[in-house]
Amino acid sequence: MTKKLPVGIIGLGRMGRVYAGHLAAMPEVEIVAVSDVIADHAAAFAAEFGAKSWSADYHDLLHNQEVEAVFIISPTGTHAEIIMAAAHSGKALFCEKPIALSLAETDDIIAALEKHGAMLQVGFMRRFDAGYLAAKQKIEAGEIGQPTTFKAVGRDPFCPDLNYARRANSGGLILDMAIHDFDLARWLMGSEVQRVYTEGGVLAFPQLEAVGDIDNAVVNLLFENGTIGNVEVSRNALYGYDIRTEILGTEGGLNIGRYQETPLVVMTRQGVTHDMVPYLHERFGPAYQNQTRDFISRVIEGREPAVGAHDARATLVIGLAATQSYDEGRPVELAEYLAYKAGE
Amino acid sequence: MTKKLPVGIIGLGRMGRVYAGHLAAMPEVEIVAVSDVIADHAAAFAAEFGAKSWSADYHDLLHNQEVEAVFIISPTGTHAEIIMAAAHSGKALFCEKPIALSLAETDDIIAALEKHGAMLQVGFMRRFDAGYLAAKQKIEAGEIGQPTTFKAVGRDPFCPDLNYARRANSGGLILDMAIHDFDLARWLMGSEVQRVYTEGGVLAFPQLEAVGDIDNAVVNLLFENGTIGNVEVSRNALYGYDIRTEILGTEGGLNIGRYQETPLVVMTRQGVTHDMVPYLHERFGPAYQNQTRDFISRVIEGREPAVGAHDARATLVIGLAATQSYDEGRPVELAEYLAYKAGE
Amino acid sequence: MTKKLPVGIIGLGRMGRVYAGHLAAMPEVEIVAVSDVIADHAAAFAAEFGAKSWSADYHDLLHNQEVEAVFIISPTGTHAEIIMAAAHSGKALFCEKPIALSLAETDDIIAALEKHGAMLQVGFMRRFDAGYLAAKQKIEAGEIGQPTTFKAVGRDPFCPDLNYARRANSGGLILDMAIHDFDLARWLMGSEVQRVYTEGGVLAFPQLEAVGDIDNAVVNLLFENGTIGNVEVSRNALYGYDIRTEILGTEGGLNIGRYQETPLVVMTRQGVTHDMVPYLHERFGPAYQNQTRDFISRVIEGREPAVGAHDARATLVIGLAATQSYDEGRPVELAEYLAYKAGE
Amino acid sequence: MTKKLPVGIIGLGRMGRVYAGHLAAMPEVEIVAVSDVIADHAAAFAAEFGAKSWSADYHDLLHNQEVEAVFIISPTGTHAEIIMAAAHSGKALFCEKPIALSLAETDDIIAALEKHGAMLQVGFMRRFDAGYLAAKQKIEAGEIGQPTTFKAVGRDPFCPDLNYARRANSGGLILDMAIHDFDLARWLMGSEVQRVYTEGGVLAFPQLEAVGDIDNAVVNLLFENGTIGNVEVSRNALYGYDIRTEILGTEGGLNIGRYQETPLVVMTRQGVTHDMVPYLHERFGPAYQNQTRDFISRVIEGREPAVGAHDARATLVIGLAATQSYDEGRPVELAEYLAYKAGE
Repeated sequence: MTKKLPVGIIGLGRMGRVYAGHLAAMPEVEIVAVSDVIADHAAAFAAEFGAKSWSADYHDLLHNQEVEAVFIISPTGTHAEIIMAAAHSGKALFCEKPIALSLAETDDIIAALEKHGAMLQVGFMRRFDAGYLAAKQKIEAGEIGQPTTFKAVGRDPFCPDLNYARRANSGGLILDMAIHDFDLARWLMGSEVQRVYTEGGVLAFPQLEAVGDIDNAVVNLLFENGTIGNVEVSRNALYGYDIRTEILGTEGGLNIGRYQETPLVVMTRQGVTHDMVPYLHERFGPAYQNQTRDFISRVIEGREPAVGAHDARATLVIGLAATQSYDEGRPVELAEYLAYKAGE
Repeated sequence: MTKKLPVGIIGLGRMGRVYAGHLAAMPEVEIVAVSDVIADHAAAFAAEFGAKSWSADYHDLLHNQEVEAVFIISPTGTHAEIIMAAAHSGKALFCEKPIALSLAETDDIIAALEKHGAMLQVGFMRRFDAGYLAAKQKIEAGEIGQPTTFKAVGRDPFCPDLNYARRANSGGLILDMAIHDFDLARWLMGSEVQRVYTEGGVLAFPQLEAVGDIDNAVVNLLFENGTIGNVEVSRNALYGYDIRTEILGTEGGLNIGRYQETPLVVMTRQGVTHDMVPYLHERFGPAYQNQTRDFISRVIEGREPAVGAHDARATLVIGLAATQSYDEGRPVELAEYLAYKAGE
Repeated sequence: MTKKLPVGIIGLGRMGRVYAGHLAAMPEVEIVAVSDVIADHAAAFAAEFGAKSWSADYHDLLHNQEVEAVFIISPTGTHAEIIMAAAHSGKALFCEKPIALSLAETDDIIAALEKHGAMLQVGFMRRFDAGYLAAKQKIEAGEIGQPTTFKAVGRDPFCPDLNYARRANSGGLILDMAIHDFDLARWLMGSEVQRVYTEGGVLAFPQLEAVGDIDNAVVNLLFENGTIGNVEVSRNALYGYDIRTEILGTEGGLNIGRYQETPLVVMTRQGVTHDMVPYLHERFGPAYQNQTRDFISRVIEGREPAVGAHDARATLVIGLAATQSYDEGRPVELAEYLAYKAGE
Repeated sequence: MTKKLPVGIIGLGRMGRVYAGHLAAMPEVEIVAVSDVIADHAAAFAAEFGAKSWSADYHDLLHNQEVEAVFIISPTGTHAEIIMAAAHSGKALFCEKPIALSLAETDDIIAALEKHGAMLQVGFMRRFDAGYLAAKQKIEAGEIGQPTTFKAVGRDPFCPDLNYARRANSGGLILDMAIHDFDLARWLMGSEVQRVYTEGGVLAFPQLEAVGDIDNAVVNLLFENGTIGNVEVSRNALYGYDIRTEILGTEGGLNIGRYQETPLVVMTRQGVTHDMVPYLHERFGPAYQNQTRDFISRVIEGREPAVGAHDARATLVIGLAATQSYDEGRPVELAEYLAYKAGE
């Protein structure tokens, strides 16, 4: 290899550090610029990871001619603005999900990317988990016949920060959590969602009512090809971070999950006990690493993104419709939803 | 014990034999009369199990003064008629689920039972499974806090007989299969169902279209206390009989299932493999035995049935509403459904 | 079937009741005579199971011309005497393991059986467990290639009664517990044991020292065909009854075990927990039933016993040698052991 | 942080790359020098990881004044020589296990380290696995009472290279594989091994006979405190890399293992199947990372090694004695063994 790919990172919080760690371990990459609204933090981060330049203003990083690929790991509310600012920069872009919480912003982003021929990969890291990758391969190999049913459980072990839980910030429970499951649904079932119906409520954390969010929901799915599904999301899995996905087909089924963090089973009079994955990074740490490597290799080799803005848009629509279904107590056809939004 | 409880069995098919086997092993019970529409079969069955009398006409058994308890294990379509004929007999009755497929018949049964003060226990055997019993106990002990979410998977490993699959015979997929899950839902969540919404389809066995049945469905549940749930049923779990139930609560969760039939794990280059419970009796055999013993002890001790006609009715309504939801593509409020039916 | 097989049971304790229950549920069997040293108990037992005759003296049962098969479920110390008394009766015999604790008695039994052409089946019920049956079938089908290594864990959840633990009564830890594993070793590996070496000790229950028993042991095995193995036995698995067997072969492995009693998993902040099989009957209940049925069918069809006195002898020798190895702190060749015993 | 710890790596094969990867991801570390007998490889490796100097002669690295810590990841046969050469360098040393295959060399190393006050940590990475760490913590917290029995299974999925299998190179099966289990035995049981007895053989790969190695062994252990154990090692676990450890105690048990690589379960007519960890790095990858970080933090903070040369010696003696036991067909007391060796 003659030259390292010069990379910039915008947003140096906990997740920014995760990406920086994976990038630092890749010999084909050099972190050359970082940006965070807290200037001191950006400076220290640059020193730690050997980045030549840092700034409190992400525009500086976007104007840095050396940077060829940008990781946008800043707060969700800033994603759309940064992508819009970066679309014409000629740099390859990676942005954590979601790229925007509204359809209008998403459409603006898609238009800007297309206009400038910009490459954007969106961070649906589950697609890079060994379990989901193997599931996808087995489905495509026909090992379970034709998929008939998609099932997903997505449970967090705590109530989110109340400010974060507001719809304006996170999009609410369904957009915040089920969005990953909706992405998997489209990807694994090989069909778009046609209709959704949601039941939900504030069942565990009454404080969520004040900010207009809920803590539990079940979303029925009808896919365009007639297959069906259900996605359950919850905030009150106090026992751990519990992500499970199942695909039933005409010849068998696939079950992706992982309950156990440490490979230790304790046997006492109280029973046989193992621990549970506590949170996201213990479950999907390797997926983040794979995703980072995948994006870098696509940039170096000039390939299409694994998950693009159109995928982000399709998934957003499912989430918006499922939220609307809960709000209005009725099934929402995605076609209807799009028409409704178009008529705004 | 001075006297054995004299028991009669109506319907001597495969399930009749299961009940007869459990009864024969109970020293406090004597099988004195059996009945089956096939006279030769009834005679041979009587000889095998030492019953003093047999008949091809169940009325003979109901008129037999010696018989104190009757097991009605005949085809579903005959349940209501037999219960109505037996209600004034003074005998204790056990009837396999469902007691009827229509609300009108069920209401007639309830009226007849009440008029004659008859005791009827309905065969929801899952309530007698060690797993569900332990789950119920843990919920009542508060081990998972307040239940928030009920989840169930009920999958059969084959397409049913097409004649059986007709709604007039089995009630259709949802009534035939999800009825067990609806019973568990009411029992474990401690709340009645208020609203249902179903997605479903013919996704694996096209021959079901000709008889008006489907092979897969997901049913969203809203309970009267605001909690939620989802029940999935399928005919195409070709890998085995797959029954799982999960209750999530504010302090933890419970998961009832059993994948493995034999306690053997095979490790080869192809992976680590175990078998799967093939069908109902391998999974719920002990539950049928427990249920039989429970009913007999209630009869001997003059106690109320564990699951009565009102439970059967409540569960039937959920099933009818969930089927209607699928037919009409809209959420069905159970209140509305009852009003609608009342207005017929 | 024209005639039921008339069966007698000697020894009406807890295990006697288990066998009686299985026999009572078999239409092809009639329990006609029972015997127990406690006369009142024998009388009540006869009434409960409909046996025509009972006695406090087992000789009465052996002299009963009607009885064609006898279950000897009395205390271990009486097995040899009863078998010797029954050998010339012409009745088929089933005896719980062990038939004797000394080689001399065992040889006497074998001689008597052979002299009178008597059929004796010995109660190694694990061979009738679905897991072990499937394992045996897979080994014979070549699914794991050539077996190379036999591993077994046999753990009880409590300290035995101290009187029982005396070698004169139970044979001591190894003969009492590992005997089942030695039987499986011979059966599954298809080779006799050639040499054993034992480490052990009183590690959990100091009270065992007073009666000369130990509570933990590991026994290395060398088979005649060169393959190897290890059997671990323990009294201090306070978490439950833990029986596991593993066979490694040149093409794969088999693992037989069962940890869970009820199909319930509890998920709380303390972890993910399931229960454990508490004791023998929860694990091997169906195996006892299968064994009973197997013996009856062999008697009715005039077939050889599944496990005979020679198997009991071969297994006893392993247990005696493994105990001697512990006593003398050296590996014991079974050939040497037999010579040594012959020279007594 | 003011200064990065300057590190050198000797031996740049597959394992050297693993360590280099972990070191490169640590901001507190700088890889400044590398060495490998293949000069071109060393040069390329230096370029890839940004090391300022490289050499085909490890002495150059040891003479490099900048290097403060050295990772010795070269072939086993070179460990002792390199450690001896490095002992007076003032550099902190990390060496992959084993540091030597003979007791004499090990004693020379210990003497040299003590003379120069050198710090050496030995690579028993399992101690840094989350499962073993949790097990150790639970034992020390008394959760299983007093440990009574140590059990270990260590199985490789293939026959080793025949040249490697020679005792002169790998030490043979027991020293090569069981050494990890012996280290865990001492660490988790909190007692030294007193006596060993081995059965073993060439049961799967006949080609091993020509080089004097075996492919399967079971080693009984008696610890100095009277507790017992068994270690099984095998080369023919064709289904995967199978490492399991179990500690039984007076109040419960601990079971450390991990069968599954990807969190995917496939359910078909053939059964319920998951994959298996294929080899060492899929199982212990994180442990290698933890170990690297642990060593670096000890160097920076001037602390003692987690596992030192005395631990390596104690473990080696168990392995030598267990090998001797197999060779001579008798139990070997470690005291006797040491005396015997002293008398050479």
